[in-house]
Amino acid sequence: MSRPVLPGRVYILGAGPGDPELLTLRAAAVLAQADVVFHDQLVSGEVLAIAARAELVDVGHRSGQAKRELQLVAERLAEHARQGRVVARLKGGDPFVFGRGGEEVQALLTLGIASEVVPGISSATAGPAAAGIPVTHRGLATSVVIVTGHERRPGCGIAWERLRGDTVIVLMASGRLEELTAGMVAAGWSATTPAAVVMAATTPQQRQVTGTLADIARGAHLAGLSSPALLVVGEVVSLALVLAPGLLTGAEVAR
Amino acid sequence: MSRPVLPGRVYILGAGPGDPELLTLRAAAVLAQADVVFHDQLVSGEVLAIAARAELVDVGHRSGQAKRELQLVAERLAEHARQGRVVARLKGGDPFVFGRGGEEVQALLTLGIASEVVPGISSATAGPAAAGIPVTHRGLATSVVIVTGHERRPGCGIAWERLRGDTVIVLMASGRLEELTAGMVAAGWSATTPAAVVMAATTPQQRQVTGTLADIARGAHLAGLSSPALLVVGEVVSLALVLAPGLLTGAEVAR
Repeated sequence: MSRPVLPGRVYILGAGPGDPELLTLRAAAVLAQADVVFHDQLVSGEVLAIAARAELVDVGHRSGQAKRELQLVAERLAEHARQGRVVARLKGGDPFVFGRGGEEVQALLTLGIASEVVPGISSATAGPAAAGIPVTHRGLATSVVIVTGHERRPGCGIAWERLRGDTVIVLMASGRLEELTAGMVAAGWSATTPAAVVMAATTPQQRQVTGTLADIARGAHLAGLSSPALLVVGEVVSLALVLAPGLLTGAEVAR
Repeated sequence: MSRPVLPGRVYILGAGPGDPELLTLRAAAVLAQADVVFHDQLVSGEVLAIAARAELVDVGHRSGQAKRELQLVAERLAEHARQGRVVARLKGGDPFVFGRGGEEVQALLTLGIASEVVPGISSATAGPAAAGIPVTHRGLATSVVIVTGHERRPGCGIAWERLRGDTVIVLMASGRLEELTAGMVAAGWSATTPAAVVMAATTPQQRQVTGTLADIARGAHLAGLSSPALLVVGEVVSLALVLAPGLLTGAEVAR
């Protein structure tokens, strides 16, 4: 059933949200056959362990990656591909959802190298799910907006007036919760809208707090939640209390 | 590494967008050990083939599923779980992204049965990716809105004035393209905004057309695109032409 994994090209793989069992069959097959894997810092050791025979190259945080750095990584990837190796570029989440995969495909193309992009599970949806929050639910939410708290120039916040949807997900929200929630309230969201912060979703370190737009930043601070964390805002957050008792999360199942 | 798969509970699994290799390791492990699998009509035969020892039960289209029907399915799932079987409920895409997984967890909880929800790759992001369109891209899009064309009462369209984001994805858009694109233009989107329709994304039947909000409905009609199809609107659509030459899609790799 599975397609061949070939040398001479670059596989741009989504590593998923953290839980190694949430990797796709395709990404696992490529990793198992890779000669070299260039990975983000956020990718877990358990995922990297699947690349048993590969040389591992840590290329740092994806969010801090400047355009020039991306070009340099592409040149190294292309060099390995030209040497006839099976080359993987492993990125947290999904390469095409705030993963800058498009820029890497473009840079590789300029260097004459073809890519295969393998989607991954984004923490934008799996993160809330792991806390018992479906991003859509009949009667509560029929639309979802996803945005990132990162990759913005200093002083440039999110243009909340240009965003609207029933459920709002902000990736990489830690350290910016006060600014994010204040911005939403200023743009018209009610301060009583249910909100949650989920830290290290789908990993054994997962923790979450729920509250409202008015108090979630303080709640997350008091609970000591740190990076990586996402913010979920919308009526669906109220389902966490209803669904969590009947929901076995990965961490619970592992016990 | 992998967690045990246990009887007496219901596994609510995301089947992903179509390509069986985009199933997660966790979903594949559960399917391989399942005694019974209740699945949507949209789930491909190749995915179902992984459930080699399971009794398969087709419960029809997810989009046509009424609340009462969902309750009846939950009762059947609970009955199998009580008999000590490994029970899987397999849904196209991701159970918590327009998959009504939250309602199923709730219904099962009322019947005293715990669930494990296993996220799947949503066609909302993998569909555009398979056509060479990243849903975010520096300088073009830093936010994504996902909405569905389905599951609405007759005469009730999407409230476009309550949605805003750089990239707009409409799932289950086929048969409604005229209405959807006209609604967006009426709500303020420029008629010249790039748009694409992707049919049967990530499967051998995948086809796509690109154009603008003004002409994409006609283009999709002329090309004979049918269900299942999604609509992507936003500047990122213009990347399809740039990225596609350097991108190997699943279908091409299989050749």
